[in-house]
Amino acid sequence: MEKKTKKVNAAILIIGNEILSGRTQDKNISFISNWLNSKCGISVNEARIIPDIEKTIVENIRLFSKKFNYVFTTGGIGPTHDDITAKSISKAFNLKYEYHKEAYEILEKYYGKKKFNDGRKKMAKMPRTAKLIYNPSSAAPGFITKNILSLPGVPSILNSMIENCKKYLVKGSKIHSNTLNLYTVESNISKQLGSIQKKYKKFVDIGSYPFFRLGKIGVSVVSRSSSVNKLGRVKKELIKLVKSKKIKILKL
Amino acid sequence: MEKKTKKVNAAILIIGNEILSGRTQDKNISFISNWLNSKCGISVNEARIIPDIEKTIVENIRLFSKKFNYVFTTGGIGPTHDDITAKSISKAFNLKYEYHKEAYEILEKYYGKKKFNDGRKKMAKMPRTAKLIYNPSSAAPGFITKNILSLPGVPSILNSMIENCKKYLVKGSKIHSNTLNLYTVESNISKQLGSIQKKYKKFVDIGSYPFFRLGKIGVSVVSRSSSVNKLGRVKKELIKLVKSKKIKILKL
Repeated sequence: MEKKTKKVNAAILIIGNEILSGRTQDKNISFISNWLNSKCGISVNEARIIPDIEKTIVENIRLFSKKFNYVFTTGGIGPTHDDITAKSISKAFNLKYEYHKEAYEILEKYYGKKKFNDGRKKMAKMPRTAKLIYNPSSAAPGFITKNILSLPGVPSILNSMIENCKKYLVKGSKIHSNTLNLYTVESNISKQLGSIQKKYKKFVDIGSYPFFRLGKIGVSVVSRSSSVNKLGRVKKELIKLVKSKKIKILKL
Repeated sequence: MEKKTKKVNAAILIIGNEILSGRTQDKNISFISNWLNSKCGISVNEARIIPDIEKTIVENIRLFSKKFNYVFTTGGIGPTHDDITAKSISKAFNLKYEYHKEAYEILEKYYGKKKFNDGRKKMAKMPRTAKLIYNPSSAAPGFITKNILSLPGVPSILNSMIENCKKYLVKGSKIHSNTLNLYTVESNISKQLGSIQKKYKKFVDIGSYPFFRLGKIGVSVVSRSSSVNKLGRVKKELIKLVKSKKIKILKL
């Protein structure tokens, strides 16, 4: 008998005009998703990119906080006028927006008393009750407010902080995945894939993604499930299909 | 006197489990945004990444269709079971989901009658009233339904189709931008930047983004506006600030 699976989900809120304008290519969604999947058994169910507008941030925080187990925000926690994430989260939950004592001390120590100006002090202002997510690369901490984890937008800094989110997260059942890279086209297997997906729809998600490699086209068939057993059964059916169609599998 | 500016906005809906799982890094948001900004004077105000779930797609299509002038969807228009964008848009607007005559002909011609199987035929099924967005690279067309423009998820194919969206779009006033790359840190200029933004908040958006270049840290200050005149005034104030602080400007 299989263990009961525990589903834990999350959503990502990318806050920043520079992503919406196309100036900056977001890299945080795939990084956070991969990390949550592989390290925490948490699936990301939605991501939104929203502008630096307080009303919009407040609305999305309230909605996502109710709808998902965890919400990751990125961006808007720096020292400038367009950094309004902490203030907006305070507003969303009617919490005072105030200096976090420990964050203040960390930043004061990092910059030195003389260079600890108003802009830098702003990075210590957070919603009351927030707990810190430590930042090993540039001091300014992220924070968690209720189920909202707020991280900076700069990918290298965010990446260095992600492990420090772990202690705040309840893990879900590991999500296993299996990929078959096939030298065929989607329409050659779409009918059978559809039938297999239908048969296992409660347990396994099957996705099909075209690829181009060394001048040849192919399809990656990705199956994902928290049940190793079901995933194995889907793999067997896929291999049977591949053999019946005489499709070559690309070993990576 | 300046010409009255015309604001036209858009939103992007990325449809696909592979983006949410982190398997695939989205590249379409920044591409579409840059193109809309530079070629059409259209600002992207929100982007969402949602899973291949019909109910979720339907809800988001309905909401975005009302909220924004244009909505771009990417993904979910291929031949497999997880490609449900066209069907979902039909449902969102209570339109029949049926073969589009011209799309059917294009695909039949491209594949040849013998190889035009059910999977491939599926790519000709669209919401009734849809108009085609031609695809110069792999035949299968995108389509526009009301104010929703549906494109494929594969970036190279999407990129080849984007110019064919133009005829369906009403242009907005050109959005001009100006970037100053400064060898300083955000907190050194955050107070003054905030004041300048406050003064011009109705006309100009000022964003500040840290960068790392050749081992040095800096800040890109990006101003955006549909008014060249106001943008020039903001630039003058920024240059004044930079000079008063003796900050070096990085010429790229």
